[in-house]
Amino acid sequence: MNNYIWIPIVVGLLTVLFAWSLARYVLRKDTGTPAMQKVADAIFKGAMAFLNRQYRTIAILAIFAAVIVGAVLFEVSHLSNASLSTSLDLAWRTAVAFLIGALCSGISGYIGMYVAVKSNSRTASAATRSLGEALMVSLRGGAVSGFLVVALSLLGVSLIFLTYKIGNNIENVPSLIVGFGFGASFVALFAQLGGGIYTKAADVGADLVGKVEANIPEDDPRNPAVIADLVGDNVGDCAGRGADLFESTAAENIGAMILGVSLYVATQNVGWILFPLVVRAFGLIASAIGLLWIRPSVVVEPNKAEGRDPGEIAMKQLNIGYWITCFLSAIGVVVGSYLLLNSDKNIHSTYGVPGWLWFGLAGIVGIVLSIAFVYITQYYTAGTWRPVREIAAATLTGPATTIITGIAVGFECVALPVLAISAALGLSFFLGSQVTITDPHIVTIPGVSIGGIFGTAVATMGMLMSCAYILAMDTFGPITDNAGGITEMGGQAEEVRDITDALDGVGNTTKALTKGYGIGSAALAAFLLFSAYLDVLYSHSHKAEVYKVDLANISVFIAALLGLTLIFFFSALAIRAVGAAAKRMIEEVRRQFRENPKIMAERVEDRVDPDYARCVDISTRGALRAMILPGIVAVFTPIIIGVVLGPQAEAGMLMVATMGGIVLALFLNNGGGAWDNAKKYIEAGYLRVNKDGEMVDRLDLNGTVLGKKSEPHKASVVGDTVGDPFKDTAGPSLHVLIKLLSTITLVLAPLYVALHP
Amino acid sequence: MNNYIWIPIVVGLLTVLFAWSLARYVLRKDTGTPAMQKVADAIFKGAMAFLNRQYRTIAILAIFAAVIVGAVLFEVSHLSNASLSTSLDLAWRTAVAFLIGALCSGISGYIGMYVAVKSNSRTASAATRSLGEALMVSLRGGAVSGFLVVALSLLGVSLIFLTYKIGNNIENVPSLIVGFGFGASFVALFAQLGGGIYTKAADVGADLVGKVEANIPEDDPRNPAVIADLVGDNVGDCAGRGADLFESTAAENIGAMILGVSLYVATQNVGWILFPLVVRAFGLIASAIGLLWIRPSVVVEPNKAEGRDPGEIAMKQLNIGYWITCFLSAIGVVVGSYLLLNSDKNIHSTYGVPGWLWFGLAGIVGIVLSIAFVYITQYYTAGTWRPVREIAAATLTGPATTIITGIAVGFECVALPVLAISAALGLSFFLGSQVTITDPHIVTIPGVSIGGIFGTAVATMGMLMSCAYILAMDTFGPITDNAGGITEMGGQAEEVRDITDALDGVGNTTKALTKGYGIGSAALAAFLLFSAYLDVLYSHSHKAEVYKVDLANISVFIAALLGLTLIFFFSALAIRAVGAAAKRMIEEVRRQFRENPKIMAERVEDRVDPDYARCVDISTRGALRAMILPGIVAVFTPIIIGVVLGPQAEAGMLMVATMGGIVLALFLNNGGGAWDNAKKYIEAGYLRVNKDGEMVDRLDLNGTVLGKKSEPHKASVVGDTVGDPFKDTAGPSLHVLIKLLSTITLVLAPLYVALHP
Repeated sequence: MNNYIWIPIVVGLLTVLFAWSLARYVLRKDTGTPAMQKVADAIFKGAMAFLNRQYRTIAILAIFAAVIVGAVLFEVSHLSNASLSTSLDLAWRTAVAFLIGALCSGISGYIGMYVAVKSNSRTASAATRSLGEALMVSLRGGAVSGFLVVALSLLGVSLIFLTYKIGNNIENVPSLIVGFGFGASFVALFAQLGGGIYTKAADVGADLVGKVEANIPEDDPRNPAVIADLVGDNVGDCAGRGADLFESTAAENIGAMILGVSLYVATQNVGWILFPLVVRAFGLIASAIGLLWIRPSVVVEPNKAEGRDPGEIAMKQLNIGYWITCFLSAIGVVVGSYLLLNSDKNIHSTYGVPGWLWFGLAGIVGIVLSIAFVYITQYYTAGTWRPVREIAAATLTGPATTIITGIAVGFECVALPVLAISAALGLSFFLGSQVTITDPHIVTIPGVSIGGIFGTAVATMGMLMSCAYILAMDTFGPITDNAGGITEMGGQAEEVRDITDALDGVGNTTKALTKGYGIGSAALAAFLLFSAYLDVLYSHSHKAEVYKVDLANISVFIAALLGLTLIFFFSALAIRAVGAAAKRMIEEVRRQFRENPKIMAERVEDRVDPDYARCVDISTRGALRAMILPGIVAVFTPIIIGVVLGPQAEAGMLMVATMGGIVLALFLNNGGGAWDNAKKYIEAGYLRVNKDGEMVDRLDLNGTVLGKKSEPHKASVVGDTVGDPFKDTAGPSLHVLIKLLSTITLVLAPLYVALHP
Repeated sequence: MNNYIWIPIVVGLLTVLFAWSLARYVLRKDTGTPAMQKVADAIFKGAMAFLNRQYRTIAILAIFAAVIVGAVLFEVSHLSNASLSTSLDLAWRTAVAFLIGALCSGISGYIGMYVAVKSNSRTASAATRSLGEALMVSLRGGAVSGFLVVALSLLGVSLIFLTYKIGNNIENVPSLIVGFGFGASFVALFAQLGGGIYTKAADVGADLVGKVEANIPEDDPRNPAVIADLVGDNVGDCAGRGADLFESTAAENIGAMILGVSLYVATQNVGWILFPLVVRAFGLIASAIGLLWIRPSVVVEPNKAEGRDPGEIAMKQLNIGYWITCFLSAIGVVVGSYLLLNSDKNIHSTYGVPGWLWFGLAGIVGIVLSIAFVYITQYYTAGTWRPVREIAAATLTGPATTIITGIAVGFECVALPVLAISAALGLSFFLGSQVTITDPHIVTIPGVSIGGIFGTAVATMGMLMSCAYILAMDTFGPITDNAGGITEMGGQAEEVRDITDALDGVGNTTKALTKGYGIGSAALAAFLLFSAYLDVLYSHSHKAEVYKVDLANISVFIAALLGLTLIFFFSALAIRAVGAAAKRMIEEVRRQFRENPKIMAERVEDRVDPDYARCVDISTRGALRAMILPGIVAVFTPIIIGVVLGPQAEAGMLMVATMGGIVLALFLNNGGGAWDNAKKYIEAGYLRVNKDGEMVDRLDLNGTVLGKKSEPHKASVVGDTVGDPFKDTAGPSLHVLIKLLSTITLVLAPLYVALHP
């Protein structure tokens, strides 16, 4: 049975090879005209320079954190009368796992980003030849990041597991690995914050001074901040989201492994612990097949498509690939359950259905939830449905009503996803709770169903199987966005721009979907991570009452309220950080226009290039400086609450903060996305009014089109600008924050127990 | 001991007399010039017409609800094997209490509003004579509403208690009264929703068409929506907030009485049950003294004040009155504790300090919290501090940054109040937990401190002692606002307008303070109401485990998540309702301008009055229609959750929804208030910039002033408009919602227990 550990290791290594071959495919493509290459080079240099400086800062913080965590755990363990060697063991293993987690996250971000920024000019060049080729280059370029993230997380956890198993009881190993998850979260927090602040500071700076004040179009080479803006798309969406999902896969794997421990103890089948890793490996295979299905021969070229929108053609292929991935994942999770969870000993299941099948079904629930999330996100952020149209209609009465309606949509859009999550959570718990443990050695706590909790874990594993595919679609976004910019700045023909524009539009949708997927999986995982924390508490205190997190207890109540407040306060800091960094950028762009009038010279031949590098540098420094305060608040608040109010209060904080994070992130992501698409709706010429100024159907030919440069369009730009830090800085940072809270509490559980015995 | 019940009854009756004498004082004042009277009459008719129709709708809904509640309780009780007479008794008593609660809320709203709208022209007229007189008339006019609300709530609860006590054990009586609280909440929900929607629909309509499109000033008689706007200030702030705090005082009294039951059982001292009523009566006395302190002889008239701002002079007097109220309340709560909580039997307290003194100190904690809230709210919404200035600076870069900064301020401003609440809750619990019950008949539940919970209840009582004074200051707001409108429309001199403007500015501050006070007391009361619900559950099920609300239980977890979602979804509906009602208003105002050009005739003598009544009618119908959906969602969601997931899950929903409501209401209220005051900051000429366009100090004479009609001012108007439905519709409705959740769960507890035994 133990041999199953080799499945994730082998699949992980093969996936690294797969990513390498994808990278080779992309890098062999031609890089376009010299004009394109020049822009691409500037983006590449800016992005890598930011990443280098950001990771250097994060590395220092991480080493610092690792030493402190190790020292604290050593002290706590030692004071709790553990032997010196046990204490030392816990301390160094956690610290080393932390550093490896941080390192793997860094490596996957770095390589993924390298390939992504190398893919943009190649996509632009491919677009001069065909839609199919452009789609292939951008998607495969994005897939390098997607597959590396999942593979390195899987390899990291598997190899540490294998190593730490030596000389340890298997049941103790998962809690020694939690440091890996904490390391990953730690890096992700700063990567997402830094990237999110960078991208929006540059975006706001470029738009406000360039588009509004100087009145030049988007992506115009005269705008000093244009390269910083293009760099920002990469460091925010690509590196940031990669680190986010690296952390998700790591934290949720480890949490599920901890939950598997008691089932392992009862059944002596190590499959319960290894299950998350094996299923994740199967998910990688499913994602790879889904990805490879998309090939030039299935893409209908626009010139043969009888007027069909190239974006629609591309989106359809991405959807088919996703459905293939989901279908194969469903098979994979059932097969995985059969292979690993097929225990007889001390296990009882109802209705004569074998236990593994109940869990397989729970896994399918998770997969169905991921599909539901894709559609709900589309409903709230795509122009074909009510919410975006409602915002578009509100632009007719100005920016104030645009904002009010967008916020109403954002508040509203919380309901459906939460209902879907609640249903999935309840159903997977119900399915899992059909399986009960009958081992007399396991302490059964009344009201706690180990099978039910493991059911929610399996559902989470099911949902995350398609992670690599989703991430490939996500990184596809900044690549196509950049390709569009390069096409524009390289002065390409209209048809080429049509293709890159269409792919860019698809990229916006896929980026929104990834955010929905990210928060959905985080929500589904919340209960599992929380339960894992309680298991860890029990392993330290051996008291059954730790399994009750009683909100009627005043400390738990206060901690929960403070947790919810942390979510709001952290969002405030993240949004404000964008403002601070954007301010410096605005000043710099204004300075360049003022001091160097040749940038805007009348005749093209008189013009000189603005100083792009300085804007890149300002964004870089601004983002790095601004990410520190929210990061510190996020790390220290849970620690202070746990130290002062104790482990049960910490659990209450974790739970309610997670709920708050889910709800607020949904608000921020979908509200921001809806504003963005309301603007696109108007730019696409879909806003039509009758003679009384009321909105009519977007295809009603009697209506007057109000398009770019109209007053409603200006109002929609205000909405979009407000939504930018919501959906690209605060919202995604909340995803990371709620998982960071889980991993911090898991790692520091011994501290809280020691202080509140 | 039992005789203490006469204190609230006598004080309540005296307070009604006091309110009557205040009303007589106001109504005897002269009503100003015929021009003033004409406007005042129009406002009076519009406000009373709305109130009549609104209360008619609410009355129908309430009778319907009372019958259903009675029928459900009868069925549930009967099915649970109670005798027919017991079941009938529970059913009719709850239904009757519900109707009396609804009726008292209606009466106090009606009379308070009547006097308030009669006070506006009298204030305007008094302003022609002196600041002192204008302050007296407006404050005393507002005090009628404030004192009636508290007195009727107190009388209602006391008299029902006295009546229901006949033939019943005292310990059963408090849970029979909960219907009164539910009735009050029920009315408050619709009153606040209807009033909040009305006021903002009229405001947005008047501003967007009148000020922006037709380019006429605020409160201009040519604007068809101007009367509706002035009516709105009354029905939203005066009637809505009155119903809100009526409900608070009722629900929190009853909750505290329920908590007193077990202490009564142990000590046989009925003082524990009557304590909330007696302390509230003492609070009324303190508030009356504080109010009477403000008299013309202490007000320095502006012409003798050497350039001091009249608003500052008035605010200082209001503050002194408030400090007097707080000081007397502190004495009152200690005396009340000594008189009523001075039990020896079965009571043990620590450090040799008598038990009553511990509780007296807990009451003082509540009073200190109310003062802290006043200052925190001022910090976030007054122009003298960072947050408002930050927003004012953001207006320099347009509406988008104005909104982003305002939202960041709103998210941030959650932290300090929550820290203050947490500290007060923890401290009052600690003080109360120094007192323990040693009666062997009382089931002691490990980890539950009856004294501690009662301590938080006493703190809540302490905080709410100044309720009548705060409400007087609140209703003062719409009166002075209306007086300003009447002065403007009646064409009064500049000096008169200066006084009403100054008082209007003070009114804005006091309105913001009341909202802060409302949410602060709701937050402090949350733990007590929640604990009362658990006591009620125990009285039905007699199982000690009902006292644990375990978030690790999947149903509790899901219910809590759904509760948090309800808060967001309800806010979306409330905000959207404003949009829907405002749309109809905008269309009507545009129609009048289009069809009747004489309204805007060049020469004053050619002008005709617009059809004000039609706008009032449209606001009325729009608000009544729009309040139904959010109201129904608010009432049915908790019922469905309790029925499907059971009483413990309901408790989790209640708790986390309350936390969410507190946090989101703080965001909405303070964010909205900060935008409003950023606009006022600019209008006051405080926004100054240097030659690079950066903001400098508001008194820096080298800076250029950017005032009304400048681009930053326009951006600030966008911010203010966005903030309007936040702070005047959604935020205040959330106050009501979280208390409605408590009273619904209290009343329907038998249903949940019966379905989930």
